Amino acid sequence: MKNKIKSINQAIKHYYAQTHVSQDLVEAVLYSVDAGGKRIRPLLLLEILQGFGLVLTEAHYQVAASLEMIHTGSLIHDDLPAMDNDDYRRGQLTNHKKFGEAAAILAGDSLFLDPFGLLAKADLRADIKIKLVAELSDAAGSYGMVGGQMLDIKGEHVQLDLDQLAHIHANKTGKLLTFPFVAAGIIAELSEKSLARLRQAGELVGLAFQVRDDILDVTASFSELGKTPQKDIEADKSTYPSLLGLDKSYAILEDSLNQAQAIFQNLALEEQFNAAGIGTIIERLRLHA
Amino acid sequence: MKNKIKSINQAIKHYYAQTHVSQDLVEAVLYSVDAGGKRIRPLLLLEILQGFGLVLTEAHYQVAASLEMIHTGSLIHDDLPAMDNDDYRRGQLTNHKKFGEAAAILAGDSLFLDPFGLLAKADLRADIKIKLVAELSDAAGSYGMVGGQMLDIKGEHVQLDLDQLAHIHANKTGKLLTFPFVAAGIIAELSEKSLARLRQAGELVGLAFQVRDDILDVTASFSELGKTPQKDIEADKSTYPSLLGLDKSYAILEDSLNQAQAIFQNLALEEQFNAAGIGTIIERLRLHA
Repeated sequence: MKNKIKSINQAIKHYYAQTHVSQDLVEAVLYSVDAGGKRIRPLLLLEILQGFGLVLTEAHYQVAASLEMIHTGSLIHDDLPAMDNDDYRRGQLTNHKKFGEAAAILAGDSLFLDPFGLLAKADLRADIKIKLVAELSDAAGSYGMVGGQMLDIKGEHVQLDLDQLAHIHANKTGKLLTFPFVAAGIIAELSEKSLARLRQAGELVGLAFQVRDDILDVTASFSELGKTPQKDIEADKSTYPSLLGLDKSYAILEDSLNQAQAIFQNLALEEQFNAAGIGTIIERLRLHA
Repeated sequence: MKNKIKSINQAIKHYYAQTHVSQDLVEAVLYSVDAGGKRIRPLLLLEILQGFGLVLTEAHYQVAASLEMIHTGSLIHDDLPAMDNDDYRRGQLTNHKKFGEAAAILAGDSLFLDPFGLLAKADLRADIKIKLVAELSDAAGSYGMVGGQMLDIKGEHVQLDLDQLAHIHANKTGKLLTFPFVAAGIIAELSEKSLARLRQAGELVGLAFQVRDDILDVTASFSELGKTPQKDIEADKSTYPSLLGLDKSYAILEDSLNQAQAIFQNLALEEQFNAAGIGTIIERLRLHA
């Protein structure tokens, strides 16, 4: 796992080592890239690819890197004063606190625009890459993450019901978390039926991830989170714990992870898929009340 | 020309008619798309394609639209309080003045992330599309426009020399203006040699465009510009007129347009290229002292 994270980071850094337009911009971009994070999205992609028997190449790491870049860009913009107005992220100052708002806006913009070039230049077949570009754009832009982010802003200080909350999160965090599942299937050239199952597994893990995040916002401390806890309560946001209570939230987390595991067990039987790697990542998402 | 602009606009609107995630986001995006603008970048692409004898299809309009979307996104972010802090753009309130800063950030983000999906789904060969994705990402992100924008911010209140100024603009505005020239060559499947010439012509038009913008900032009124004039002087920015005076600035504009026209005359002789359409657009960029 550590070697994979190292190779993902190298793919990002290698791309930024090639632009000599603005070192100030590269510095602001890499500050947030280097802030760490668990690299869960790219690791999901790489583990599933290996599960299908693929030997990982630089191109796979580049696809993984492009996904992580978009995620990182979204964190930079989410933290801006006009958005969540956060001073800390992953235990260090947020990008705009360190480099100023203008640089943080541009660093985020770079991390949205650059990944498509990185992906397009990867050593994979053009027809596979163009499918990945379409999926990544849909997952990230107004059809996905950014659309969900707008819903989330409009839903603050409003009492949402469970369907509305699920819809927001399916877009805001779910679609970018689903991308590695679908992308792995595209790269492994699976059937449409298996691709649909992977997408479903991704959606379940995406849901689990959000419920988990909401639970941790209530239960964890600053040092555990690396950012200010209880921001949701402070911002008067609807969350799974605020709508359903902690016990039911834990149950939803458990249930969605179990369902995702079941899909991979099925793929293991039908597609000669080795579910060990992805199974380990999914197990790590569990929380115990 | 009017029909072309209509079809470019339709391609953008059609893409946003398909996302039902957040109507608030779509509204903010289309507000800036609908603000008009001359659509110079997409028109350059379409005119050059026609010059090479291609019959324009919906796919060509989608490529043109993806380019205009990125340009529009950059204007929304440029106008933000943390950047140029402009209240008016194209004669109407800027996006953040109308919808608030958070929505404007997200509208710009969408206009950076969505175009790659639009382009990837266009009815063109995958190998052509993936080349276009790579070029568009390089032109727009940290290798191009966003990199140049960062240089521009760092260059405010600093006395720049002509080389530094040219370098900033070659990236900030030049590369996205060069994209339609190169993209047309990729779609028309020209030789590397002809592609290199098109890139050169694009760089010349990009330079002309910036010098023209600098001249107009000094000489034009609010109603002519649709935005606040003399912002450069106010911001103490180095510009072509501030470094060279107006007369020399007019001369550079003239010279770079002449050189671009000469390249197209050569292509007309050697590649059976009809230079009439692109010639007309280039002529419209001239200003007379």
